[in-house]
Amino acid sequence: MKNLKYQERGKVGIISLNRPETRNALSLELLQELEDLIRKISEERLVRVVVIRGEGRAFSSGHDLKEILDRHPIEVEKLFNQCYRAMLAIRDAPQPYIAMVQGVATAAGCQLVAACDMAVAAKSALFATPGVKIGLFCYTPIAFVSRAVGRKKAFEMGFTGEFITADEALQFGLVNRVVEDEKLEEETMKLAESVARYSLNVLESGKRFFYKQLFMEDFQALAFATESISLYSSTEDAKEGIRAFFEKREPMWE
Amino acid sequence: MKNLKYQERGKVGIISLNRPETRNALSLELLQELEDLIRKISEERLVRVVVIRGEGRAFSSGHDLKEILDRHPIEVEKLFNQCYRAMLAIRDAPQPYIAMVQGVATAAGCQLVAACDMAVAAKSALFATPGVKIGLFCYTPIAFVSRAVGRKKAFEMGFTGEFITADEALQFGLVNRVVEDEKLEEETMKLAESVARYSLNVLESGKRFFYKQLFMEDFQALAFATESISLYSSTEDAKEGIRAFFEKREPMWE
Amino acid sequence: MKNLKYQERGKVGIISLNRPETRNALSLELLQELEDLIRKISEERLVRVVVIRGEGRAFSSGHDLKEILDRHPIEVEKLFNQCYRAMLAIRDAPQPYIAMVQGVATAAGCQLVAACDMAVAAKSALFATPGVKIGLFCYTPIAFVSRAVGRKKAFEMGFTGEFITADEALQFGLVNRVVEDEKLEEETMKLAESVARYSLNVLESGKRFFYKQLFMEDFQALAFATESISLYSSTEDAKEGIRAFFEKREPMWE
Repeated sequence: MKNLKYQERGKVGIISLNRPETRNALSLELLQELEDLIRKISEERLVRVVVIRGEGRAFSSGHDLKEILDRHPIEVEKLFNQCYRAMLAIRDAPQPYIAMVQGVATAAGCQLVAACDMAVAAKSALFATPGVKIGLFCYTPIAFVSRAVGRKKAFEMGFTGEFITADEALQFGLVNRVVEDEKLEEETMKLAESVARYSLNVLESGKRFFYKQLFMEDFQALAFATESISLYSSTEDAKEGIRAFFEKREPMWE
Repeated sequence: MKNLKYQERGKVGIISLNRPETRNALSLELLQELEDLIRKISEERLVRVVVIRGEGRAFSSGHDLKEILDRHPIEVEKLFNQCYRAMLAIRDAPQPYIAMVQGVATAAGCQLVAACDMAVAAKSALFATPGVKIGLFCYTPIAFVSRAVGRKKAFEMGFTGEFITADEALQFGLVNRVVEDEKLEEETMKLAESVARYSLNVLESGKRFFYKQLFMEDFQALAFATESISLYSSTEDAKEGIRAFFEKREPMWE
Repeated sequence: MKNLKYQERGKVGIISLNRPETRNALSLELLQELEDLIRKISEERLVRVVVIRGEGRAFSSGHDLKEILDRHPIEVEKLFNQCYRAMLAIRDAPQPYIAMVQGVATAAGCQLVAACDMAVAAKSALFATPGVKIGLFCYTPIAFVSRAVGRKKAFEMGFTGEFITADEALQFGLVNRVVEDEKLEEETMKLAESVARYSLNVLESGKRFFYKQLFMEDFQALAFATESISLYSSTEDAKEGIRAFFEKREPMWE
């Protein structure tokens, strides 16, 4: 991989966007590597949680505009289709993904934060969907930002293009927690490890359920949930977990 | 009823989960009684608002794990289907339901808070969907929590299983207000009584409308609302209400 | 126009509801004028952003109850259909609409705030959907309020009918910012002008996209966004915008 680094720390995988000289611009090549890596981690099942971070001062500044300007729409679509597939790989993964955000997360970089299941931000981090400023609305970032953030604020982000702070991102629902800059890695790993204690089977089925039911009507979702919890109650994971609870010990899962 | 208490105070019904020795665990028997009681209150139409509370120190700790462990999935499904029917009875009721929450509200207990139309929490109350910790993801609770709370936070609740405080529950949308512990009953009754002044017909049609339109596209919902408000404008409730407004007096409704 | 005033200040259009003696009640006649004016502004394309404000002390107190009481439902429907069409004209407009709110915004007045794409509120502004108090639930206002505000709070607004403050409106997502009363116009114009710098073509396609994708499942929305951004990348607006970015100058758009 030329554009990414990957390491595993216990049951946590850490993907680093590694183009700091471009503020981790999401080039076509990087996005292909990212999709491949995520698919590989999903298949190997060696880790239970994955963190995505950026090398250098920024999380990610989004796409490389040089790959957009003066290209034929078909070529541009190749780039954005690849971006779609990388985001879909995150959604398809059995592991929860956590964005660890320092510096700026703009355009597709902001989308990547929204596409991860959870996000931790450094106090000084900044978020924006500024496409409107360069005459190309942030369609793809807003598709995901508007699913995490309330309407009025998502509209404002898309149509002013201005930065919001980490504290605002927390208030509006784009990130899960804001921590002191120097504690960003420590706190992100703490969150990751707290989830990595659990069974990967359970995380996987929970994650599939979580997103599938979001667009269902309330009692369709509850009917689906009722089937799921009834069936999963007889799995070894649940049996071991409940037994350990009664026996006041830690459960032992694969 | 072995597992519930019920009283009426003016136009407010108060259902108490009455298994304090189990932190009001939602056993199959309790859930059957709960559905029956809610259906009865709905039919009698003696009260206009219903409060659900828990006896003892907890609101509810969720299902009884003894009714899940080592049972056949079909038997487990009986439990969860009954839970589904109790939640549906709340939704079908003409009365708005208010959860009054002290102590812990976990798993299906947290779901019950989310399933009520409104909720008031004591400052020291705690909320969690901790199934992931025992190897059985909180499918059914998360189906409802993820409809009240933003995505990122709902995911966090489901996948960390950790408690959130009453103040966080307010911030993220799970409850309507947080009050000093010793004022929980007083403030909950104040909210209940403020709604119980209104016509039950109006509360009923409003509640049906509120949930039916949530999953419609914007102008489908507005078209439905337009029909509803036009037709209901000629009811006796509306005529009396508007006349009383013009005559600067209290409306008189059945 | 008997019930509205309109002026253009640079690229910002300003519509004033002009029935201060009735707290800008949204009469059938006013709503017809409002629809016509919005459609005209949409066709002329002279401005890029539109502000809606109210003359006098209130933003708007909603419909005129005299046009509802003792009328045949068909006649009442005429009023609400006209209200629907005015709201739809805002949605169909190429320009982002900003509500500038002082005093009270109640019932259909509150709906108008929710129907605008963004909103700025004076610190002392108050919002309510109080129909329940007069026996006619705020169906149409709640259809829009419940799309901006979380469920529990939207339910509370609909079923208590009580006012929320500007700060609460910000916290729950009904408005974008709260400013000192004496700075309301200045701050609203600042927001409007910051958006009016951008290309109207881009604002228009962004606005159409924003609302169309909201009710799609996540990756349907992202697929739609992927097509959109790929195609729009070859427009003159995007080319000029990206070139200006590389050349570190202001873009020049029509």
